Amino acid sequence: MSTDIPDVSKVSIGILGGTGDQGKGLARRFALAGHTVLIGSRSAERAQAVAESVGGSVRGADNATVAAEADVVIVAIPWDGHRSTLESLRSELAGKIVVDCVNPLGFDKQGAYALPVEEGSAAQQAAAVLPDSRVVAAFHHVSAVLLLDPEVAEITLDVLVAGDDREATDTVQALAARIPGVRGVYAGRLRNAHQVEALTANLISINRRYKAHAGLRVTDI
Amino acid sequence: MSTDIPDVSKVSIGILGGTGDQGKGLARRFALAGHTVLIGSRSAERAQAVAESVGGSVRGADNATVAAEADVVIVAIPWDGHRSTLESLRSELAGKIVVDCVNPLGFDKQGAYALPVEEGSAAQQAAAVLPDSRVVAAFHHVSAVLLLDPEVAEITLDVLVAGDDREATDTVQALAARIPGVRGVYAGRLRNAHQVEALTANLISINRRYKAHAGLRVTDI
Repeated sequence: MSTDIPDVSKVSIGILGGTGDQGKGLARRFALAGHTVLIGSRSAERAQAVAESVGGSVRGADNATVAAEADVVIVAIPWDGHRSTLESLRSELAGKIVVDCVNPLGFDKQGAYALPVEEGSAAQQAAAVLPDSRVVAAFHHVSAVLLLDPEVAEITLDVLVAGDDREATDTVQALAARIPGVRGVYAGRLRNAHQVEALTANLISINRRYKAHAGLRVTDI
Repeated sequence: MSTDIPDVSKVSIGILGGTGDQGKGLARRFALAGHTVLIGSRSAERAQAVAESVGGSVRGADNATVAAEADVVIVAIPWDGHRSTLESLRSELAGKIVVDCVNPLGFDKQGAYALPVEEGSAAQQAAAVLPDSRVVAAFHHVSAVLLLDPEVAEITLDVLVAGDDREATDTVQALAARIPGVRGVYAGRLRNAHQVEALTANLISINRRYKAHAGLRVTDI
């Protein structure tokens, strides 16, 4: 694998929906890596409380403030409300790299399954709603449990990064690699984001069968 | 990972569309593992010629003969013609484990992309067309180049196995493990086969970017 990745050590990271487990876990790992991290929520108070619980230099604010202040913004909000939340932040997110890690999944007694998405995927919906942002799909398969576990120093998996803007995907690959054990792997254009999102349903099945926190490694790179 | 897998060493394997690179590569590896392997094609002559080129104990015949004779049948035919070929073999395939490894993909100058499938996936189409067969999705991500390369003794990757019939998925997992280096990993129900098929488009993008023959390993199992 090429190691020609940009220096992202000074990039500040905002996490919309950072009060959920996935967002909180990513906030924790990026703070440990030395990044300025802003947790966003609909409620600034709730964001501040979660930021304090994560500790380090993590701060909390309402989603709009976080979207406006951070260099790179990770979207970790629930699928229900994805479109409307992003629509409300269009101007704050203009010109920025927006990293969508949302998995549109349904659940029933047989487990998880991929929901149909009109635009093709959550990431493509973000790109449609945010025409002035640089949308990248990434961080779908990172277990929140592992991200939040203080006993886990390294997370051995690859973050699949999909997008149409080379500089943006390079940046997000480099950000993924700030988490010890993680590689950021370019995995194609945004039109191929759906299956990356949907594969989370398979990982949930794998977790159930094998009592694991499964992730993926790409072989031969 | 559990090692409680059935003994499949005596299972004979038929490969419909076994004259393509993927089918031929699988035929070669299963023959090396000691299986009776039958390569199927629309033309028996072509199947016989390819079987001879693969060598070992591999035999060739028309698809209907292969479907009738083999214990387990792998579907490695082109997506174009998938439905009609399977429809024509419904009675031969009744009662059998049918392993669909077909990736419905389109290609343009930006690379590969997933095609929409009315039934959800190639595997679900197979299940719809073959109501009396036990359809399993597997072997989507194994590089034909590696399968066919005599210098490659081990292929380090996981075959994701999706299906609704536990005995059938167990059998296919065990068959995958007959190829040195490969693990067969249960990856959910058939309704979650689409993203496994479609992810082949991402692997093609990865191969292009990293000059690789990429596959996947599931971590933490």
